[in-house]
Amino acid sequence: MNLVEEFDQVIIDVNIATMDPTISKAYGTIENAALALKDGKIAWLGKYEDLPEFDTLSTPVVAAKGKWLTPGLIDCHTHLVFGGSRAREFEMRLQGVSYQEIAAQGGGIVSTVKATRLASEEELFVTAKKRLNALYSEGVTTVEIKSGYGLDTESEIKMLRVAKLLGEHHKVDVKTTFLGAHALPPEYKNDPDAYIDLVCEEMMPKVAQLGLADAVDAFCEGVGFSNEQTRKVFEKAKSLGLPVKLHAEQLSNLKGAELVAEFKGLSADHIEFLDEAGVKAMAASGTVAVLLPGAFYILRETQLPPIKLLQQYNVPIAISTDFNPGTSPVCSLKLMMNMGCTLFSMTPEHVLAGVTVNAAKALGLNDRGIIAKGMRADMVLWDITHPAELAYQFGVNPLEKQWIDGENVVI
Amino acid sequence: MNLVEEFDQVIIDVNIATMDPTISKAYGTIENAALALKDGKIAWLGKYEDLPEFDTLSTPVVAAKGKWLTPGLIDCHTHLVFGGSRAREFEMRLQGVSYQEIAAQGGGIVSTVKATRLASEEELFVTAKKRLNALYSEGVTTVEIKSGYGLDTESEIKMLRVAKLLGEHHKVDVKTTFLGAHALPPEYKNDPDAYIDLVCEEMMPKVAQLGLADAVDAFCEGVGFSNEQTRKVFEKAKSLGLPVKLHAEQLSNLKGAELVAEFKGLSADHIEFLDEAGVKAMAASGTVAVLLPGAFYILRETQLPPIKLLQQYNVPIAISTDFNPGTSPVCSLKLMMNMGCTLFSMTPEHVLAGVTVNAAKALGLNDRGIIAKGMRADMVLWDITHPAELAYQFGVNPLEKQWIDGENVVI
Ligand SMILES: [Zn+2]
Ligand SMILES: [Zn+2]
Repeated sequence: MNLVEEFDQVIIDVNIATMDPTISKAYGTIENAALALKDGKIAWLGKYEDLPEFDTLSTPVVAAKGKWLTPGLIDCHTHLVFGGSRAREFEMRLQGVSYQEIAAQGGGIVSTVKATRLASEEELFVTAKKRLNALYSEGVTTVEIKSGYGLDTESEIKMLRVAKLLGEHHKVDVKTTFLGAHALPPEYKNDPDAYIDLVCEEMMPKVAQLGLADAVDAFCEGVGFSNEQTRKVFEKAKSLGLPVKLHAEQLSNLKGAELVAEFKGLSADHIEFLDEAGVKAMAASGTVAVLLPGAFYILRETQLPPIKLLQQYNVPIAISTDFNPGTSPVCSLKLMMNMGCTLFSMTPEHVLAGVTVNAAKALGLNDRGIIAKGMRADMVLWDITHPAELAYQFGVNPLEKQWIDGENVVI
Repeated sequence: MNLVEEFDQVIIDVNIATMDPTISKAYGTIENAALALKDGKIAWLGKYEDLPEFDTLSTPVVAAKGKWLTPGLIDCHTHLVFGGSRAREFEMRLQGVSYQEIAAQGGGIVSTVKATRLASEEELFVTAKKRLNALYSEGVTTVEIKSGYGLDTESEIKMLRVAKLLGEHHKVDVKTTFLGAHALPPEYKNDPDAYIDLVCEEMMPKVAQLGLADAVDAFCEGVGFSNEQTRKVFEKAKSLGLPVKLHAEQLSNLKGAELVAEFKGLSADHIEFLDEAGVKAMAASGTVAVLLPGAFYILRETQLPPIKLLQQYNVPIAISTDFNPGTSPVCSLKLMMNMGCTLFSMTPEHVLAGVTVNAAKALGLNDRGIIAKGMRADMVLWDITHPAELAYQFGVNPLEKQWIDGENVVI
């Protein structure tokens, strides 16, 4: 008597872009493949002809008709939870009103902080859920969400609680990041060091105690916090056992990437002004480069991130939306893939790696981001004839089916 | 006894961005408004408090709760019907393969022509319908579709027939444009004048006879057709009673805008290299400037269209996707609105005018594009707090309800 495999679901007649770097073909491709799921994980994959015998009567089978399966997309850097809208500010800038005048009218990040502080958890949840749905409908299965518009203990905790709630009420897996050191709140305008003390001595311990953050982030920049202030934040995070990441080298080079590498950080994000020393440090520490073409686009930046250097030193490159109300009001990871190609001259394969395998690394997740045996079954089936389609065409959603944690979810 | 108005539907508690230039407020706004439909047209609009008495028992009423109504969006320049995919070519270019090498491998527009000629009407219909659905889901109610990938009589007619069929099978109103003079087909490689003769003497008369085109377009450019060849096309169109428009001044200045103005043409499109003489000619002839930020973005162009000059001479500016497989594989008019602001520094009000009132003008349609009494009831209700939101945020679709020709369609 033959033993037959027990699977929960089997996908046949499929082409798989595994994105597994151990498969040397472009996109880690397995053509004419099959894949089997069991207990939310990928139990088997390989050539269709090698698919082991299984109980065909009791196991649901998806016939993919030659369509393409990829890992679920991962958006590893978002500010998805916030109150208010900055549409009028966007309009005023285009009408020629100066930044100073807009700031004097209470615009800029301060207006988002004000609106976020005033918003109820319910209001924040409802607006953020629409944004999460938009990402989900494009094939996103894991999203990182940062705090950073509360800037007081209560409001930062409120933001993180909403982000956690989103994860509990949504199929998409949510990872949270504490970004208390995002900007200086108005009440600390003249004393940034005192605000950093509040972040380190009050906010972060509470956040850690409540288990509300998977990581700690900061904004190291002339208009944000200094290298020294960021170091304080990172030291506290380290003492609390939380991994760090950093908004670094977006508008200037404050050596933030070297700092985050020193702390074996998960990622350095933006990094338009990153230099070779920073790239080397990131390579040595295994820190991922997270590129954010949406902010580059909206700000009409011209300084490109050092992509060739990053590739030369084998620093993994992730791509993310940086979705936020000020500098990247663009809630589409698929558009970021196109922008990675169009604005940063990356290849479709590199940008797909940037929203799968490398985005998983940027979140410290080793159970997803590639299609391989034992991995979480987070996958998308696309109605495309080649994986390059995903970065090339925008606007017509080719998503056909989506699995999160092995569950075939319905869009 | 009071007479009561008979309406088919009434919308109350709504803010209306009429885009009607006779209303001097920004966006032609009427706040706290109401609007009534009758026989597919706008029968009444004004302040809610002034709404005439109507039969509240038998008339459906939409309570909009302060949301915003705008004219339905109009995409006035698309190449929505074509065969094949250029994703691999997009990828090869990013992998560093030269244009020459790609052309030698049969890439470029020739590959789309080949695939379009080979495709059945059914295949073209199915793929184009997905693209049309994508535009429709964003609030587009009228779309222009060009031929131009057939480049022989039979295939050009096939493309236009598919475009017409789309209009018959879809709620969106489709206008068709004959673009036989889009590119030189391989079989006429060494004799462009003979191809122009074919366009003028065989294709265009047949297209006109079959009633398949609402207008005639050409590509006047070094890599397209000369000013003199374009003139021949326009003279033939004029003799057949068809209005003209032109792909003009995209990569150089061949005085195409002056030519199209001479023929009192509907629009000059692209126009990055347009000069003041061309602007003046367009102003005198009432020719609309159609800006195509998607192609500007994909080609990473740096030469901006002369927007200030166009505004100075009161030339109406429309915005469109130019959706096509080569230079604008971006099927989203809402993204074009954001790009109009981000890349062209236009205001949210100007880009909304560009996809409503001015896009209607670009198609020679005076029954739509603004919300006013007697106009076609093509309208969208948006879940936004200010019309600037439409250009500002991208990715989260704020579309709440949509009417085409007075019918409340379901997305
Ligand atoms: Zn950010
Ligand atoms: Zn075009």
